[in-house]
Amino acid sequence: MSDSMRYETGLAMLDRIDGAGGRHVVDALWDIAPDFGKYLVEFPFGDIYSRKGVDLKTREIATIAALAALGNAGPQLKIHLRACLNVGCSKTEITEILMQIAVYAGFPAALNALFAAKEVFEETTPTSK
Amino acid sequence: MSDSMRYETGLAMLDRIDGAGGRHVVDALWDIAPDFGKYLVEFPFGDIYSRKGVDLKTREIATIAALAALGNAGPQLKIHLRACLNVGCSKTEITEILMQIAVYAGFPAALNALFAAKEVFEETTPTSK
Amino acid sequence: MSDSMRYETGLAMLDRIDGAGGRHVVDALWDIAPDFGKYLVEFPFGDIYSRKGVDLKTREIATIAALAALGNAGPQLKIHLRACLNVGCSKTEITEILMQIAVYAGFPAALNALFAAKEVFEETTPTSK
Amino acid sequence: MSDSMRYETGLAMLDRIDGAGGRHVVDALWDIAPDFGKYLVEFPFGDIYSRKGVDLKTREIATIAALAALGNAGPQLKIHLRACLNVGCSKTEITEILMQIAVYAGFPAALNALFAAKEVFEETTPTSK
Amino acid sequence: MSDSMRYETGLAMLDRIDGAGGRHVVDALWDIAPDFGKYLVEFPFGDIYSRKGVDLKTREIATIAALAALGNAGPQLKIHLRACLNVGCSKTEITEILMQIAVYAGFPAALNALFAAKEVFEETTPTSK
Amino acid sequence: MSDSMRYETGLAMLDRIDGAGGRHVVDALWDIAPDFGKYLVEFPFGDIYSRKGVDLKTREIATIAALAALGNAGPQLKIHLRACLNVGCSKTEITEILMQIAVYAGFPAALNALFAAKEVFEETTPTSK
Repeated sequence: MSDSMRYETGLAMLDRIDGAGGRHVVDALWDIAPDFGKYLVEFPFGDIYSRKGVDLKTREIATIAALAALGNAGPQLKIHLRACLNVGCSKTEITEILMQIAVYAGFPAALNALFAAKEVFEETTPTSK
Repeated sequence: MSDSMRYETGLAMLDRIDGAGGRHVVDALWDIAPDFGKYLVEFPFGDIYSRKGVDLKTREIATIAALAALGNAGPQLKIHLRACLNVGCSKTEITEILMQIAVYAGFPAALNALFAAKEVFEETTPTSK
Repeated sequence: MSDSMRYETGLAMLDRIDGAGGRHVVDALWDIAPDFGKYLVEFPFGDIYSRKGVDLKTREIATIAALAALGNAGPQLKIHLRACLNVGCSKTEITEILMQIAVYAGFPAALNALFAAKEVFEETTPTSK
Repeated sequence: MSDSMRYETGLAMLDRIDGAGGRHVVDALWDIAPDFGKYLVEFPFGDIYSRKGVDLKTREIATIAALAALGNAGPQLKIHLRACLNVGCSKTEITEILMQIAVYAGFPAALNALFAAKEVFEETTPTSK
Repeated sequence: MSDSMRYETGLAMLDRIDGAGGRHVVDALWDIAPDFGKYLVEFPFGDIYSRKGVDLKTREIATIAALAALGNAGPQLKIHLRACLNVGCSKTEITEILMQIAVYAGFPAALNALFAAKEVFEETTPTSK
Repeated sequence: MSDSMRYETGLAMLDRIDGAGGRHVVDALWDIAPDFGKYLVEFPFGDIYSRKGVDLKTREIATIAALAALGNAGPQLKIHLRACLNVGCSKTEITEILMQIAVYAGFPAALNALFAAKEVFEETTPTSK
């Protein structure tokens, strides 16, 4: 595959998964490290997420599990909580997985991820307080 | 639910997910911290894994993603790689998820998890070297 | 022990250790993952903190040491810095332990924990600015 | 204080806390980074552990809590589990604190620390296998 | 070396590397843990940064690489991004190193460090918005 | 750039930096995740290490700093300690950087990295035991 094909494939995948949030990150890199925006599109989205073998819903479940366990990537966790909803996970599936993180990375990691999810769910629920 | 019911439910779930590996961990705690073996059965397996909302296959995908990202729990990662196979994940699904960890926790985390998977897959493949 | 007894025991312990801060966390889980609020009361506080063998002061010293070393659980660190004071640790004991974290997790982890302690101490000191 | 006084103070503290294990680490640095052996004696042991304000038992409790939570410093955890015993912690106190780490850093961190403690306890128990 | 010489040496080094930012941290420790301000000057800056063998530019490159990889020490990362510029690193050198962190600690760690660098670079660029 | 050019560029860079060690990792991935060997060559080595802006010596300094700070990637740290020597770092430069990691990630992280360096230096020293 040529680089331009990887970039096009990656950008379509980024749009599908992250919606406006993904493009916003790439744009924000423009004046500091534009090539890194290119790599971000090409490797994670053009190479990895575009692979067959597992569906996007499963990929996003794995991503929020990893980010919640690491506990030091708040902005990326919120982007991928939105992405989880975008690719078809229910709010119940998301909260189930985040609760499970308490077992592997402790209650603080699970709590911080659940509160991030609460903020994301409220953005997307018209009638939420 | 009474504690004895949580324990029974958890033990059945532990056996189903981890096979002999889970019981081995509980037994190994016997002479150092027997109550911790009880908690390990009750909370992760009796409370969390026994919940509805996501299937066991999805739970195990999340677990190996979290453990691979953390990168400091080698024995538990291997137990859950076996558990992934036990609850119906294919080897392809497992390697796809572990490759994806490179994006969120770096190439060393992904490599070490893939090499752990290689060891686990070889255990379970009759004709492997 | 029945689940309701674990919950009652845990809630009394949560109130004793964390004061209003603990209940606030449980309440905040209500509309996102109410069962997780229940687990949070039952396992950490009903099962673990209610055990004999070490006093609550020692337990809270261990908790702030762990959270300061991990460095990715700011809200929980502040709750447990308040809890340390609640169960009888002096400000000197707390700052001594946080300074020691520099040895095991580096100066940034110790500094960030000391500045969190500074904020907590100022809340509780009548004449602070 | 002069550097030689910090070194002497630190070395006496190192011997008291870690016994032969601490000197072994300093000696092992001799042919790779001898100055680092000096710093290791001076800063952690000469400056920090020699401070008043908390007793050595409490300091060692905090240290094993931090190292168990981090989960990536196996050799140092074992040295400090021995140190805990040296400065007067009981095996029960140690296992209680390590079990509590499950709450803050997850079950794998607690399990790996408990199994390290099991090895250390067996070294020091005449009738162990 | 006497302690007062280590302190003087360290303070001169702190001023040279971190400018006003370093002194600000030491001052902020005054009412919570003044001795820790002393240790911060003496060990990292008086002992380590004052050593021969590598130049300050290389030391600061290593520091931002370590802090970006850990991902849980935001304030210290920003101080050392400024320090990198102070000791002669170009913006290009800094962004190259931070992009490389994606390989070893994942894209979120690299992105968060690059966005911290963007803020620091804008502070120091007269015509930035 | 086409994918085959990225692969060729990356493989030449991998050989230059890691010597036989890098190829060994790619080969070991063959029967578990061959595409990941391809990505490992293409993204870290074809895209990142092949960039201008900083020399390879500086890149390897940053890599060992990051890996030593993370503390959970032992095999990769040893590969890159060898790589540091391959691209022209002296043993003194390496030990200086690893000692400095004590400031940012704690003494255990620095000690474990120094002992890994000791093993690597002994491999490459004709008269070592």
